[in-house]
Amino acid sequence: TKLAVVGAGAVGSTLAYAALMRGAARTVALMDINAAKVEAEVLDLSHGVQFVPEAQVIGSDDVSVCADADVVVVTAGAKQKPGQTRTELAGATIDLMKKILPGLVEAAPNAVYIMVTNPVDVVTYASLKISGLPPSQMFGSGTVLDTSRLRFLIAQHCGVAVRNVHAYIAGEHGDTEIPLWDSATIGGVPLLEWNRQSEHHGPLNDGDRARIADEVVNSAYKIIEGKGATNYAVGLAGTRIIEAILTNEHSVLPVSSLLTDYYGISDVCLSVPSIVGRRGVYEQLQVPLSDAEYDGLKASADHLRAVAREFGF
Amino acid sequence: TKLAVVGAGAVGSTLAYAALMRGAARTVALMDINAAKVEAEVLDLSHGVQFVPEAQVIGSDDVSVCADADVVVVTAGAKQKPGQTRTELAGATIDLMKKILPGLVEAAPNAVYIMVTNPVDVVTYASLKISGLPPSQMFGSGTVLDTSRLRFLIAQHCGVAVRNVHAYIAGEHGDTEIPLWDSATIGGVPLLEWNRQSEHHGPLNDGDRARIADEVVNSAYKIIEGKGATNYAVGLAGTRIIEAILTNEHSVLPVSSLLTDYYGISDVCLSVPSIVGRRGVYEQLQVPLSDAEYDGLKASADHLRAVAREFGF
Amino acid sequence: TKLAVVGAGAVGSTLAYAALMRGAARTVALMDINAAKVEAEVLDLSHGVQFVPEAQVIGSDDVSVCADADVVVVTAGAKQKPGQTRTELAGATIDLMKKILPGLVEAAPNAVYIMVTNPVDVVTYASLKISGLPPSQMFGSGTVLDTSRLRFLIAQHCGVAVRNVHAYIAGEHGDTEIPLWDSATIGGVPLLEWNRQSEHHGPLNDGDRARIADEVVNSAYKIIEGKGATNYAVGLAGTRIIEAILTNEHSVLPVSSLLTDYYGISDVCLSVPSIVGRRGVYEQLQVPLSDAEYDGLKASADHLRAVAREFGF
Amino acid sequence: TKLAVVGAGAVGSTLAYAALMRGAARTVALMDINAAKVEAEVLDLSHGVQFVPEAQVIGSDDVSVCADADVVVVTAGAKQKPGQTRTELAGATIDLMKKILPGLVEAAPNAVYIMVTNPVDVVTYASLKISGLPPSQMFGSGTVLDTSRLRFLIAQHCGVAVRNVHAYIAGEHGDTEIPLWDSATIGGVPLLEWNRQSEHHGPLNDGDRARIADEVVNSAYKIIEGKGATNYAVGLAGTRIIEAILTNEHSVLPVSSLLTDYYGISDVCLSVPSIVGRRGVYEQLQVPLSDAEYDGLKASADHLRAVAREFGF
Ligand SMILES: NC(=O)c1ccc[n+]([C@@H]2O[C@H](COP(=O)([O-])OP(=O)(O)OC[C@H]3O[C@@H](n4cnc5c(N)ncnc54)[C@H](O)[C@@H]3O)[C@@H](O)[C@H]2O)c1
Ligand SMILES: NC(=O)c1ccc[n+]([C@@H]2O[C@H](COP(=O)([O-])OP(=O)(O)OC[C@H]3O[C@@H](n4cnc5c(N)ncnc54)[C@H](O)[C@@H]3O)[C@@H](O)[C@H]2O)c1
Ligand SMILES: NC(=O)c1ccc[n+]([C@@H]2O[C@H](COP(=O)([O-])OP(=O)(O)OC[C@H]3O[C@@H](n4cnc5c(N)ncnc54)[C@H](O)[C@@H]3O)[C@@H](O)[C@H]2O)c1
Ligand SMILES: NC(=O)c1ccc[n+]([C@@H]2O[C@H](COP(=O)([O-])OP(=O)(O)OC[C@H]3O[C@@H](n4cnc5c(N)ncnc54)[C@H](O)[C@@H]3O)[C@@H](O)[C@H]2O)c1
Repeated sequence: TKLAVVGAGAVGSTLAYAALMRGAARTVALMDINAAKVEAEVLDLSHGVQFVPEAQVIGSDDVSVCADADVVVVTAGAKQKPGQTRTELAGATIDLMKKILPGLVEAAPNAVYIMVTNPVDVVTYASLKISGLPPSQMFGSGTVLDTSRLRFLIAQHCGVAVRNVHAYIAGEHGDTEIPLWDSATIGGVPLLEWNRQSEHHGPLNDGDRARIADEVVNSAYKIIEGKGATNYAVGLAGTRIIEAILTNEHSVLPVSSLLTDYYGISDVCLSVPSIVGRRGVYEQLQVPLSDAEYDGLKASADHLRAVAREFGF
Repeated sequence: TKLAVVGAGAVGSTLAYAALMRGAARTVALMDINAAKVEAEVLDLSHGVQFVPEAQVIGSDDVSVCADADVVVVTAGAKQKPGQTRTELAGATIDLMKKILPGLVEAAPNAVYIMVTNPVDVVTYASLKISGLPPSQMFGSGTVLDTSRLRFLIAQHCGVAVRNVHAYIAGEHGDTEIPLWDSATIGGVPLLEWNRQSEHHGPLNDGDRARIADEVVNSAYKIIEGKGATNYAVGLAGTRIIEAILTNEHSVLPVSSLLTDYYGISDVCLSVPSIVGRRGVYEQLQVPLSDAEYDGLKASADHLRAVAREFGF
Repeated sequence: TKLAVVGAGAVGSTLAYAALMRGAARTVALMDINAAKVEAEVLDLSHGVQFVPEAQVIGSDDVSVCADADVVVVTAGAKQKPGQTRTELAGATIDLMKKILPGLVEAAPNAVYIMVTNPVDVVTYASLKISGLPPSQMFGSGTVLDTSRLRFLIAQHCGVAVRNVHAYIAGEHGDTEIPLWDSATIGGVPLLEWNRQSEHHGPLNDGDRARIADEVVNSAYKIIEGKGATNYAVGLAGTRIIEAILTNEHSVLPVSSLLTDYYGISDVCLSVPSIVGRRGVYEQLQVPLSDAEYDGLKASADHLRAVAREFGF
Repeated sequence: TKLAVVGAGAVGSTLAYAALMRGAARTVALMDINAAKVEAEVLDLSHGVQFVPEAQVIGSDDVSVCADADVVVVTAGAKQKPGQTRTELAGATIDLMKKILPGLVEAAPNAVYIMVTNPVDVVTYASLKISGLPPSQMFGSGTVLDTSRLRFLIAQHCGVAVRNVHAYIAGEHGDTEIPLWDSATIGGVPLLEWNRQSEHHGPLNDGDRARIADEVVNSAYKIIEGKGATNYAVGLAGTRIIEAILTNEHSVLPVSSLLTDYYGISDVCLSVPSIVGRRGVYEQLQVPLSDAEYDGLKASADHLRAVAREFGF
């Protein structure tokens, strides 16, 4: 199996690291226009191979290094700057995609494409049009990261293991995203009914949920301010998606895919819980939504469609 | 960290194997009255150490080998015979516990005790009385195994990854156990509303659920008929509980613990989703139950209490 | 990736378990003439899938279940009985291979074949003739297991981690096998010069080495006496070989392959350190041998050739 | 188990990431004078907890966050700048250690200390004097990283798995370091006798070895030029040492420890293969050295002692 990562920046190279540590692919290829950087990352990653499952790391500033990849992750682009919103990155990124996608798709025509570059939903939508790939084969990492942030915060608040928190962030990977509280559960208990009290942990009330939702939306800004980029959690989130594809898991992940009549929402890429396997996105699940959640999702869709239109898509 | 496994039979030694492969404990001690068998198992497990995280395997027919263990798993007892119910094993097993628990608790007074020997619920209840340990420190593996069977069957039927199926079996580890359909979800979708149709997979209707529930209850019998014991899945289920304890996960697991006013049910050990960490069982979660589920749970409790009484507990 | 295991006995099903726990293959197929047993093993393994990397377990008494496997492991045959030597099993096993190999090779023509059934070296040699497969594509698990036993015993004696002991058993997987002391090292120190003394561990003298060599040869007998089979370490050894193949590691493993002028030894299958990758065995390494080791290897080869001739190969 | 990492820069936070992915410790504490950065790193790492073994990440600019750690890794300091040698960093780093070690040792008196900040050998020597800790309890990561680079390059050249290359870099982590070719082996074959020829790989001659040795010494410079820091491989190397300690492996690792009459070399910290376990460094192994290697090691020791003297140690 071969994983190609386009863009060997903070996100791309950390994702390659996580994928190597997990043994997610036998060959990891990095592609970046910065030839010195890509060579340095390949060396640094290769030097760690003694400590991880046997693998090969290759890299180049030429797209041919991605040839015949099974999965391509696109992280190329400009880093979000402190204070900058993800939407502000849109124009430049879309132009970039116009430049790199044709060559990529030629080199790796059968790969599943995971878009990560921001604003990921709009970029995914535009990239589908640019590349002509079927919507199952190309989707965005979406709110897989935001969802892991949500689950972490809930778990911490409630004093349970993260793996027992089942809750999703849907919509835009960005300011209009919404937590799906209504369908969320903690170890079998509906999250909205969670009222466990223990020595260190109280129940989860309206105010707590509002604060948590807020933190999820704003944590990227906070991290970027503090360290200049976010890379660790997104590297793991990306690796998780890659694993779901390469081992054909049929896992449910909130990736950003093209919706067609999802609760009446169409012609936009955004995140809802979706089944992911070897051929990409198979289907979006009809998760029950409260009225507020439905309205939020619709508003998110309208916003994303508007941004896409702005850039001619 | 030290794990002690009492009873190096099919279940005990497979559990030790799984725990070693997962690196769950640095020292694994096996104790069995059959000295030749325990020595053979220790050798066979030790020979595999090259391929797993560094660990030490020790064994003896003397309880002192369990000294100062952090977790003790009790699997000693007679294997269930083809056709035999778990309850029929009760008397002999309880007598066995009277014999071995005092020495064990003296050797490993601070360990968390996981009872596996069947009938596990009654044995756990009796063992609490015999040992005088607090209920948080001793519990049964309960329906962790049955739950993994349920999830596997649902996942297979619905065509999704097992890890996205969130459903529990509660009650007795045995014939009166009940699936908690009402609170079950698949990737955010309430299981009772699951109606995804795809090429190979249909929706999950009443009949499907009844068949699956039936298969869960009967699969142990079927496996025992076919291979004389069940060991692989239970080895992993046990290892999962051990990990939850040793890494203080606060994970939700359906272990069999002493209930005190759980929906009005008291003075019986049975399985409901419970929080497990370094000090054992912290709390039982108030999972919402349908009326039928509540009745089933109560019936299971009454049955288990009656069996315990029969044996003088 | 698909792994097929032929023979779902103690070795075959434990190997499947280890492979599942390690995520070595996405599909694991068990084949056994005992349909009830294979079904029971498939159920027991499947029930554990919740706790391991997502995978699918299938089984049947029909060879078609192995179709298009990437690796086939053959463990079918009679278990070694207490007191019985591996050679005594030869005739029956060879007849068995004549029966099952043609159908297998038809079902999985491109698989790499790992023979495990004993006496593994003679069975591998005969199976190459029976199947007509090229020697790179079919080999025996050989002394990978014996080598892990050797390393464990040395590590234990010297008080170092098993992973730092680099020593091989070569020759027959059986009574004529020989430890390659001359080329063995411990963390960079030639084993023959190891003289570390510490609180609990002395140096490794001639007598120690003789005792260790003896234990390696005899431990299978001892384990079989104590528990009726050996399965845990061999399950891991087999999984290790499978991983080396499926991730194309080019790892050095002492598998049993057809030698052609290896230090003058030809026309026999036995174990020497060999490079293993996606296409099977690539090459045998010319490890330096002392005169005694060379003589031992030659004697082992002569013995194995004689046994093969006895059975008409 | 608790791991504390002092310095949440490129190296420290990547090491924390690798340790979390490997489940090396249950609690990971980051300490850095840059409060905003440490908070950002803690958030980014925490958000990934869903995808790794359950753990807790904490951080602060106050040393109390390291309280009662089992292992402390010190990476605080100035990054090596393009063109700068490691020795040039010495003065500033030693002053830093004078400032932070007293508080650290008070907070975590029983921890094993792994020094990573460069120039690591001199810093380790000075830190032993400053802290007054016994030499077993504090050592440098030394040439564990350089060794992994060496093994990668040899493996790549020879076409074998990295795990089968057994070779060490000894001496300074820096320009005077030396590969121990004489004791090196590849899968049982002395490296100096390796002459395998295959389709893509030739033998390993003098020139190849010289080139490889050169690349090992210079790769850090090259990586720093290309990406501004080295972090991935060192994160894994550090994690490997942490695992050896926390699971009491007694593994052989080329860490930098205080030598006392090692082949006549004393009163200097440098790397030779050493046994590492729960209580730190147990012993340095007497690996056989060629005359040139002995001379190189002595020169490296003299150089390091001279630098230490320069800074008053
Ligand atoms: N979707 C998510 O969850 C998520 C999370 C974090 C970051 N991101 C996004 O990921 C992107 C990358 O972030 P980063 O921190 O790695 O940025 P970065 O600046 O560190 O890296 C971007 C890399 O892309 C390379 N690049 C630019 N043009 C290229 C081209 N034509 N071909 C190949 N490579 C090219 C650059 O040389 C650089 O190395 C940003 O858009 C960021 O907002 C998304
Ligand atoms: N709770 C569950 O989910 C679950 C699942 C499977 C099996 N089980 C139960 O686990 C138990 C063990 O099953 P098994 O298949 O391993 O049986 P087994 O017969 O293979 O092993 C039992 C072992 O206990 C040993 N033993 C007997 N008396 C002992 C004593 N006084 N001290 C120490 N060891 C003693 C025996 O020598 C034997 O090796 C059974 O009760 C079985 O029903 C429970
Ligand atoms: N090479 C090694 O390192 C090593 C180590 C341990 C065991 N072994 C060998 O492995 C073999 C298996 O040992 P075991 O303990 O698993 O024995 P076992 O008796 O438990 O299992 C053998 C299985 O093979 C099945 N079988 C018989 N004929 C078959 C056929 N025609 N097609 C498919 N399946 C068939 C049987 O039904 C049985 O389930 C033995 O020969 C043993 O000596 C080798
Ligand atoms: N030994 C090795 O194998 C190896 C390998 C790579 C890097 N290094 C060394 O590791 C060190 C760190 O490198 P980096 O790339 O992470 O640098 P960096 O600049 O990214 O990080 C250093 C961190 O230390 C912090 N720091 C400074 N003073 C501190 C104090 N008093 N208390 C706590 N934190 C403090 C800084 O705020 C900064 O975050 C350097 O000395 C580098 O040369 C060693």
